[in-house]
Amino acid sequence: MSSSFGRFFKITSFGESHGQGLGVVIDGCPAGLKISTEEIQLELDRRKPGQSKITTARKESDLIQVLSGIYEGHTLGTAIGLVVYNEDHKSGDYDNLKDLYRPGHADYTYDARYGIRDHRGGGRASNREAVARVAAGAVAGKLLQSLLGTRCLSWVEQVHELKAQIDPDSVTLSQIEANEVRCPDPKMAEQMHAAIQQAKSEGNSLGGVIRFKVEGLPAGLGDPVFDKLTADLAKGLMSIAASRSVSFGLGEEAALLTGAEHNDLFVLKEGRIATQTNRAGGVLGGISNGQTLWGRITFKPTATLLRDQETLTKKQETTQFKARGRHDPCVLPRAVPNVDAMVNLVLADHLLSFAVANLGRLKRALVH
Amino acid sequence: MSSSFGRFFKITSFGESHGQGLGVVIDGCPAGLKISTEEIQLELDRRKPGQSKITTARKESDLIQVLSGIYEGHTLGTAIGLVVYNEDHKSGDYDNLKDLYRPGHADYTYDARYGIRDHRGGGRASNREAVARVAAGAVAGKLLQSLLGTRCLSWVEQVHELKAQIDPDSVTLSQIEANEVRCPDPKMAEQMHAAIQQAKSEGNSLGGVIRFKVEGLPAGLGDPVFDKLTADLAKGLMSIAASRSVSFGLGEEAALLTGAEHNDLFVLKEGRIATQTNRAGGVLGGISNGQTLWGRITFKPTATLLRDQETLTKKQETTQFKARGRHDPCVLPRAVPNVDAMVNLVLADHLLSFAVANLGRLKRALVH
Amino acid sequence: MSSSFGRFFKITSFGESHGQGLGVVIDGCPAGLKISTEEIQLELDRRKPGQSKITTARKESDLIQVLSGIYEGHTLGTAIGLVVYNEDHKSGDYDNLKDLYRPGHADYTYDARYGIRDHRGGGRASNREAVARVAAGAVAGKLLQSLLGTRCLSWVEQVHELKAQIDPDSVTLSQIEANEVRCPDPKMAEQMHAAIQQAKSEGNSLGGVIRFKVEGLPAGLGDPVFDKLTADLAKGLMSIAASRSVSFGLGEEAALLTGAEHNDLFVLKEGRIATQTNRAGGVLGGISNGQTLWGRITFKPTATLLRDQETLTKKQETTQFKARGRHDPCVLPRAVPNVDAMVNLVLADHLLSFAVANLGRLKRALVH
Amino acid sequence: MSSSFGRFFKITSFGESHGQGLGVVIDGCPAGLKISTEEIQLELDRRKPGQSKITTARKESDLIQVLSGIYEGHTLGTAIGLVVYNEDHKSGDYDNLKDLYRPGHADYTYDARYGIRDHRGGGRASNREAVARVAAGAVAGKLLQSLLGTRCLSWVEQVHELKAQIDPDSVTLSQIEANEVRCPDPKMAEQMHAAIQQAKSEGNSLGGVIRFKVEGLPAGLGDPVFDKLTADLAKGLMSIAASRSVSFGLGEEAALLTGAEHNDLFVLKEGRIATQTNRAGGVLGGISNGQTLWGRITFKPTATLLRDQETLTKKQETTQFKARGRHDPCVLPRAVPNVDAMVNLVLADHLLSFAVANLGRLKRALVH
Repeated sequence: MSSSFGRFFKITSFGESHGQGLGVVIDGCPAGLKISTEEIQLELDRRKPGQSKITTARKESDLIQVLSGIYEGHTLGTAIGLVVYNEDHKSGDYDNLKDLYRPGHADYTYDARYGIRDHRGGGRASNREAVARVAAGAVAGKLLQSLLGTRCLSWVEQVHELKAQIDPDSVTLSQIEANEVRCPDPKMAEQMHAAIQQAKSEGNSLGGVIRFKVEGLPAGLGDPVFDKLTADLAKGLMSIAASRSVSFGLGEEAALLTGAEHNDLFVLKEGRIATQTNRAGGVLGGISNGQTLWGRITFKPTATLLRDQETLTKKQETTQFKARGRHDPCVLPRAVPNVDAMVNLVLADHLLSFAVANLGRLKRALVH
Repeated sequence: MSSSFGRFFKITSFGESHGQGLGVVIDGCPAGLKISTEEIQLELDRRKPGQSKITTARKESDLIQVLSGIYEGHTLGTAIGLVVYNEDHKSGDYDNLKDLYRPGHADYTYDARYGIRDHRGGGRASNREAVARVAAGAVAGKLLQSLLGTRCLSWVEQVHELKAQIDPDSVTLSQIEANEVRCPDPKMAEQMHAAIQQAKSEGNSLGGVIRFKVEGLPAGLGDPVFDKLTADLAKGLMSIAASRSVSFGLGEEAALLTGAEHNDLFVLKEGRIATQTNRAGGVLGGISNGQTLWGRITFKPTATLLRDQETLTKKQETTQFKARGRHDPCVLPRAVPNVDAMVNLVLADHLLSFAVANLGRLKRALVH
Repeated sequence: MSSSFGRFFKITSFGESHGQGLGVVIDGCPAGLKISTEEIQLELDRRKPGQSKITTARKESDLIQVLSGIYEGHTLGTAIGLVVYNEDHKSGDYDNLKDLYRPGHADYTYDARYGIRDHRGGGRASNREAVARVAAGAVAGKLLQSLLGTRCLSWVEQVHELKAQIDPDSVTLSQIEANEVRCPDPKMAEQMHAAIQQAKSEGNSLGGVIRFKVEGLPAGLGDPVFDKLTADLAKGLMSIAASRSVSFGLGEEAALLTGAEHNDLFVLKEGRIATQTNRAGGVLGGISNGQTLWGRITFKPTATLLRDQETLTKKQETTQFKARGRHDPCVLPRAVPNVDAMVNLVLADHLLSFAVANLGRLKRALVH
Repeated sequence: MSSSFGRFFKITSFGESHGQGLGVVIDGCPAGLKISTEEIQLELDRRKPGQSKITTARKESDLIQVLSGIYEGHTLGTAIGLVVYNEDHKSGDYDNLKDLYRPGHADYTYDARYGIRDHRGGGRASNREAVARVAAGAVAGKLLQSLLGTRCLSWVEQVHELKAQIDPDSVTLSQIEANEVRCPDPKMAEQMHAAIQQAKSEGNSLGGVIRFKVEGLPAGLGDPVFDKLTADLAKGLMSIAASRSVSFGLGEEAALLTGAEHNDLFVLKEGRIATQTNRAGGVLGGISNGQTLWGRITFKPTATLLRDQETLTKKQETTQFKARGRHDPCVLPRAVPNVDAMVNLVLADHLLSFAVANLGRLKRALVH
């Protein structure tokens, strides 16, 4: 069950980095949602390799094929099959990796688990797997947009030691897309860009932090006690390659406040129950409270380095190796649409669960 | 599906804080595991209320009843039903909460979701729900111990601004259990204890950080791509009440290192593949690499405050309220066994998945 | 995952025949459903042992305890925990079975699977496990009744060679409950009763057929392609102890008709789309068509015989044995509420799935 | 979750009859299984349209593409993505069906559920969906063959009133494949063939019965209490288009025997525990007992008729219509590989579950 995610809006992905292709099946998307191939492609283009000087040079058009489940521009309610074929798989680049374990990569752990692996470009462990998530996330995002008028917005907040100072409430998609780093602070984005290029030129790599927000959610999304909104988001976000931590609201900083300092007090805003502050990140007891949902994900620096590293072979012999394959010196700019996708997928799933959580909503659904 | 967790070693919990009782069904525990009621009780006793001056005064013996699935001291392979009856439910303490929304609690969000709630002591949102997790986690822990000779060890690393300086590799269970805070640094534990009592006397509360480790795991646990070990742990740990962030290995600090600084190099240790350092926290590509699994969870300060707070009623009227119910001024000491439980549950689940992940292991299992 | 059933309205059962007790957790029942303990008890009383001369003499009051999820007469939306304690477990009756394999029973197969078993009264394989299903089914039935004004009605149609001639459309619950066989044809019921008593007196047992119907279902229940309504019903019904076949509509007889004879033609009835005949059993392509859902389940004769049978011991030695434990000479009368329960559970599950299957219904649910 | 099947060996299918293509993702197949594209193709060729005079004339080469999960002839343990593109979709044939509801088809029920449908050739409700099952079933079959040396064998036992008299124990694959009907009784096969051609020439259709058997299974497959082997098989088999009943062992005939006549007595055969007879169909208490697993599925006559039928339009107007699309006058010959597939899928799933059901097997798996 490792390649499926979600309960009501469920996706199942497949594909290796240098195999024939990748794809995803979406099962449980309600019928009647208007969506075009272009809308899905748009999100894939945001994560496409080769989009800038600070991303991998691999050339993939990542053209999505809709094999089923969408007819005449609308979802049918049946399983949506989406496929992208790999084009630029220079498998030869990876011949030298066949029998060694790259530091920081999953080569060794895949071998330990499966006793066999597709060594080309990391196989199933490659970041390229995100194609499937992003394609499915585009459909989830459209569903949210269509039903709630909102969806997730993520951006790069930190690269290595460079932290942007941004008012999160004012961030827009166009600000995010305005530069190649996907940091809505243009000046900091320039510095980040330079830092990434510098690291690249040194055969090194950088990590950082992505922040996400979802405004305008209704209160009530989230299933106690194990499928809390925060729990499912944590799983989805920690399943993204290179993620190392996930937090909601103040996150780690919450430990430094007392209860009297941390509690968000309830107040009326425009006749509706709201909170004065939003340290909780829009979730109470694992259920959305109608305030902006927000949090952060930390990504480690890319494990692939264009410099010599010592490592072990399958036969336990020491060897030197230097990566030749194309890669991102910093995964964050292209991870932004991936974060959007995972958050949208979790929210779409929980929106369906919410719809049937009480008799009142259920009765309204069944009226005809 | 909100009250179930796990795929192969699956638990389903139920129970409200002030209802008749709580319980859990474990489905998928292999037959033939030797386990006694006492072993389960032992873990429950670690999280039992009323165990010290810095925990809630609620008196519950939390005696576990084994209703099924264990016979003559061994698991039968069938569903294990465990029940704990509530004893000290002073529901009257909560009468004043019936129609108001406590800040930082899930009262409002439960109402938004369900349109109805059991207001007594937080109902299903209460920390008391952890009884079920801890009971199930005891069985998972025994399974791990029996098969691998290891299981999770957690401790309090930080309370508010007080951070312990501990060599994590040397921490033992007896060190953790040596004081009421469950911090294996005895001097810091005293300071933490004082800080919690101080906060309590001021009607305030504190948060902090719990660290966990699992030594001696085999390499290969973790399912790509959504059920990564880290992803499932993140979900399990973020489903614990009051958790705000979860991280693995260096976590947030990973963003501050370059790739060359962060990669753990493979080396041979005692003839086996190991890593020189363990910044990754024992997981590569979501799969255990045979090194110590470790990470941290941040908990917010308890939302319940024994002081006046302004809030809203269900009818959207402003009101003052001061908590009367018993509560923990700092959830961390009693959250330690809960963290152990969730980690053990995830590992037990992944151990079963690992056993059938390749043909070699599967064939060995089927030999007779 | 063997003890869970359902996706949206999910139940998890536990309990052995002669253990401490049995129970079930219902996860996913919408909040706000009015239901009393008495309503659940009523269904349990229908399947209770010792209710007549043709059922087992075991004395169990089967009193249900509601441990969670129902508060002040309404469901909370959280997990509903239900428990029944065993009272009349005369385990001594089964001492002679500890090391032998009863013909037609699951003793040998449980040993082959688990390497250990609770031999007392069949343990987990006992029909007594149905207590959990029936209790959960009562809640599902109430949900259906409340939302659709209908729920399942089952009755005994055949015992051994005795087949009742009944107009299924006119059968009512009171007709079914009017006699101990639960056959709404009173004259045939008498003959069946006599046949069962006769078999009992000979230490023998009888099987038969139960028919079920659900009138007044909306069209649209059923998920293509694997979770068809018929597929999920087949699974639920074939999971009942002693069931040997399940069919829908004409079932096996359908093979004897040509397509021109079998197709139900669409016609307007009272301004709504209906079918002239109902050979299909109310389902087309696995989805309900608004006609009466109906089908049949065949039960084998009880395996327990109060007469000598030759069999093998665990050590593969031949032995003679004669059952001493209490049992039903014909399982059908008490299987009727079990069939009701499974059908109601499947329908409740599919009703929730139906509510979110298209954007129109989903939008209506979310309006507020 | 409608398009997924299985728990450990899980498949997710997608595709409409006249969309771009169909496919399936297999998640949970153990790594290291040797399998070629040809082996999968072989099964698809058995169910391919246009294979004889008694099947649909639609021309599809049904060439399978392996997009992921198999590398250098072995499974990787990761998700296996399989795709077949549609070639001969003459959608024009179905223009007249856009706004009417064909009798016996799912047109009306899909509309009731989704409010939208792909009317071309039945869309998702088409028998063509079985491409995905059969492809996945081929992998499951290979796994069984590789681990147990056995897999499912199905054949046509009855067409309309023509019943073959065959010794089931002696039936071989080559006998089944020896004629276009897939009935191993050559004389009866000829009569069946003639009957189907006769029905076709009259614009009519026929149903019938398929029997399956699996020899050489170990005892112990099947999860109590809901995921019994029989329950899961019933679900899988009842999810096949046009199926109307499923039975195990004697099935409906079991009702006509007394317990003394029905019980299979345990005996030693070649030093192993076996049963003298096999009326139970190889399953006791939902768990395999090591005897041949066998049962039957009844299929209704094809709903598509090449003759005038009266029906209703979407606007509830009466209309005459006569099918033009290509179809099978009897689905059974091509349903045989579909039955094989579903049985193999269930068995593969249960084999993995069996491997971790007790501590002994689990320990052996983990030894290294």
